[in-house]
Amino acid sequence: MSTTPRIDVNCDMGESFGRWSLGDDAAMMPYLSSVNIATGYHAGDPVTIRRTVEGAVEHGLGIGAHIAFPDLMGFGRRRMVIPPRDLQDYCLYQIGALQGFVRAAGGRLAHVKPHGALYVMASEDPEMAHAIAAATAAVDPSLPLMLLNRQCEDAVVRAGVTLVPEAFPDLGYDDHGKLVIEKSKAAWNPDTVAERAVRMAVEGKVASVGGVDIDVDARSLCIHGDAPNSVDIVRTVRAALDAAGVDIVPLGSLIPAV
Amino acid sequence: MSTTPRIDVNCDMGESFGRWSLGDDAAMMPYLSSVNIATGYHAGDPVTIRRTVEGAVEHGLGIGAHIAFPDLMGFGRRRMVIPPRDLQDYCLYQIGALQGFVRAAGGRLAHVKPHGALYVMASEDPEMAHAIAAATAAVDPSLPLMLLNRQCEDAVVRAGVTLVPEAFPDLGYDDHGKLVIEKSKAAWNPDTVAERAVRMAVEGKVASVGGVDIDVDARSLCIHGDAPNSVDIVRTVRAALDAAGVDIVPLGSLIPAV
Amino acid sequence: MSTTPRIDVNCDMGESFGRWSLGDDAAMMPYLSSVNIATGYHAGDPVTIRRTVEGAVEHGLGIGAHIAFPDLMGFGRRRMVIPPRDLQDYCLYQIGALQGFVRAAGGRLAHVKPHGALYVMASEDPEMAHAIAAATAAVDPSLPLMLLNRQCEDAVVRAGVTLVPEAFPDLGYDDHGKLVIEKSKAAWNPDTVAERAVRMAVEGKVASVGGVDIDVDARSLCIHGDAPNSVDIVRTVRAALDAAGVDIVPLGSLIPAV
Amino acid sequence: MSTTPRIDVNCDMGESFGRWSLGDDAAMMPYLSSVNIATGYHAGDPVTIRRTVEGAVEHGLGIGAHIAFPDLMGFGRRRMVIPPRDLQDYCLYQIGALQGFVRAAGGRLAHVKPHGALYVMASEDPEMAHAIAAATAAVDPSLPLMLLNRQCEDAVVRAGVTLVPEAFPDLGYDDHGKLVIEKSKAAWNPDTVAERAVRMAVEGKVASVGGVDIDVDARSLCIHGDAPNSVDIVRTVRAALDAAGVDIVPLGSLIPAV
Repeated sequence: MSTTPRIDVNCDMGESFGRWSLGDDAAMMPYLSSVNIATGYHAGDPVTIRRTVEGAVEHGLGIGAHIAFPDLMGFGRRRMVIPPRDLQDYCLYQIGALQGFVRAAGGRLAHVKPHGALYVMASEDPEMAHAIAAATAAVDPSLPLMLLNRQCEDAVVRAGVTLVPEAFPDLGYDDHGKLVIEKSKAAWNPDTVAERAVRMAVEGKVASVGGVDIDVDARSLCIHGDAPNSVDIVRTVRAALDAAGVDIVPLGSLIPAV
Repeated sequence: MSTTPRIDVNCDMGESFGRWSLGDDAAMMPYLSSVNIATGYHAGDPVTIRRTVEGAVEHGLGIGAHIAFPDLMGFGRRRMVIPPRDLQDYCLYQIGALQGFVRAAGGRLAHVKPHGALYVMASEDPEMAHAIAAATAAVDPSLPLMLLNRQCEDAVVRAGVTLVPEAFPDLGYDDHGKLVIEKSKAAWNPDTVAERAVRMAVEGKVASVGGVDIDVDARSLCIHGDAPNSVDIVRTVRAALDAAGVDIVPLGSLIPAV
Repeated sequence: MSTTPRIDVNCDMGESFGRWSLGDDAAMMPYLSSVNIATGYHAGDPVTIRRTVEGAVEHGLGIGAHIAFPDLMGFGRRRMVIPPRDLQDYCLYQIGALQGFVRAAGGRLAHVKPHGALYVMASEDPEMAHAIAAATAAVDPSLPLMLLNRQCEDAVVRAGVTLVPEAFPDLGYDDHGKLVIEKSKAAWNPDTVAERAVRMAVEGKVASVGGVDIDVDARSLCIHGDAPNSVDIVRTVRAALDAAGVDIVPLGSLIPAV
Repeated sequence: MSTTPRIDVNCDMGESFGRWSLGDDAAMMPYLSSVNIATGYHAGDPVTIRRTVEGAVEHGLGIGAHIAFPDLMGFGRRRMVIPPRDLQDYCLYQIGALQGFVRAAGGRLAHVKPHGALYVMASEDPEMAHAIAAATAAVDPSLPLMLLNRQCEDAVVRAGVTLVPEAFPDLGYDDHGKLVIEKSKAAWNPDTVAERAVRMAVEGKVASVGGVDIDVDARSLCIHGDAPNSVDIVRTVRAALDAAGVDIVPLGSLIPAV
């Protein structure tokens, strides 16, 4: 007896700041099940946060706190060496701030996801993953923490939090399963991304840049919102997942199954 | 039949930032019933916030969000002209961030108080008072909003929030009841401040700088934490209020009576 | 004997910040004689500053320091009440920072122009105009200060600095000569802007929104870089000025004539 | 024939920010020959910069730009991974800003010194040292760059800049000559620091924490301004150097000899 494959589709959002706009959040939302909303440290002034949260609530999307290093000038993409105890406080500050907006909009915070350099570092370094998980648990231990893979799962679980690994159909993977980061997000062919997304969701596999099939263990697929053709991509991905009979559901529905 | 006079005694706290320390919060806490904790916009990095919140919870103090203009360089003391809708979002961001720490420490947010220029402007301008009250209501309409007087009470009530006026025994009042702000807080004689505090609490009166008795309508007395002798002052004020039979209670106990 | 009309054409530039881009500076530069480069307080991280300065030096443009209130979140567009002595230091900081880049690129700083709310306030308030002029004089008293009009000229001259008034062909003027600011810059018809620019340069006049001819005393015309069709506009304005026999020259060449 | 030993004595200064004060700069200045003034990225708002520069000019001190990572919350003490080309721009911004104040006060910028994590990283990493030296050269190649040792001298010289190594009489050295950093600066015995300073200046040696004599190659001695007894220490050090016949001279006088 076969079961219907189910997966979450998420996108980073709310990355404008004051006068500066970034991404076309409104156009992306109809095709997603979750969003990660910037919480002010790498992007996202309070006005942007509020509007983005309101949009996400309207679309019934799962809302995650997209927490980051305090580095507006570097968009949170530069590694910083911050003591884990301090980092935990930085995360709690950001999660709490976002939660205020989510509640005000009648929603419920659904997950936490680190951004940029914090994402990469926390996916590799158990101490940092634990600090973020501890901040998450302080707010609500039922909030899952999205990371690149399960490398730091023990540290996250030790804080009482569930780790949810995600995959990136619009990025390359090397033969060891490591992401090939692009300096600025290139415009991939939407059909290619869609095929990869379906294969990730249905088979749990993707072809590496070296042409080798590698395992992808993901509960959520992340689509970049800052590619030149992001809206095309997410629309195509969504249609392809639907056509393949994949259920697209918010992360919350998937957690008990983890 | 006479009733025991009751009043809250509050102090601004958590105004350090990173490497920079300000005030001796730990020494002040034993004599207070409430604290207003800086939320990051004029002071208060997340590590400072967490430590201050933990101390306040240990001392059983009522914890208020001390929200401010986004002006670290000016310590939130400079007037800014911010559209009310944006201001409301700035306030919600800060209240939410603090609430995360308060909950993590096992406490409960007790009130909201604007800081510096925002305090002065919101006490005079109904639109600004309403914006702050609306942000407060979005988090929890049972949180009272502390302001200098009842001038903007209608606007606050319209947002579903209770306004709590406070008084400053360590500042002068002019004959019209307006505060005489000191550029940097001078060291007042502790006995003088204590006498004024008792009179404010028991009689609801204070002598103006012109020697006229004026009415002071206050549910809370604010003691400055940044005078050279703040700890002496708060200790003396507390002893005098106790000796005069005034009950010092957190704001929450006073609200139903408002 | 008639003389050839001469005028400067300037545009605000370098208003990107880190990950966020704003304006198409490179496309505008060929049509300008001067640029005002953001100095980090409302926009302009150091990398953006360097690139913009390098471009301006390549195009032989006069480079001005576009100084602002310290308000990244509000893009320097919100009034702040800052003591003039402090404001003077804020201005000196920004002018000095930009001057470092200009010299490193082999150029020479040519003028100073306040941005946003600081521009509006300094054009009305002699104390603020004087503070900015004093900071300018501290760097180099030969740098002219661009303001909206001559209202604060005495205060500027008292600091030893020349005031240069400018005009905005792509904004409306009311019957009293006050600018009609647009919330976000609308796309004006390029031909309309060009006609107004020529009339400002040749006749020193413009039609108000009420249809009245008003005097415009300007040594420089400012073209917005953040309208949807800014490049079209500046190209059309430039062509029209050339066709009308107006010499477009950097501010420096015009100062002795002031 | 023996020569009089000569050395520079420097201290970090201007590390206040807005409402927050740090260090007693005025009390330290009489005993120094050079100061390193914070340039706004880790500390030092423009008002603080101006006042500190004015004091340094009055005391005839050599003024250095104390440049840092953009990390106010971490006081520039946290490692950040910033591309060298971007870092160079960050440095140029800060050096230029300080230079504006130095000139306005009638002084002349005398050197550049990185602060905190940038100091440690640039003393180890030639690419970073080169980026800082390139920014220094862009302002004035005759400005020496102070670092912990000569490890990155080639990279600095390649940018056309002289490296000046300094020593810390109030910090321990391990047997390999590495500094033993203190989390918050402890109060050393002033006589101990003074003895070490004299020995560094006269013999070029210091005893390690392991009791081994190690070579110290320094043109300048740095005294911490943030120890509880910094003023006592610098006064004692100065008296001891004078008594030992060491000439205390600004860095500039020492450079030709390097």
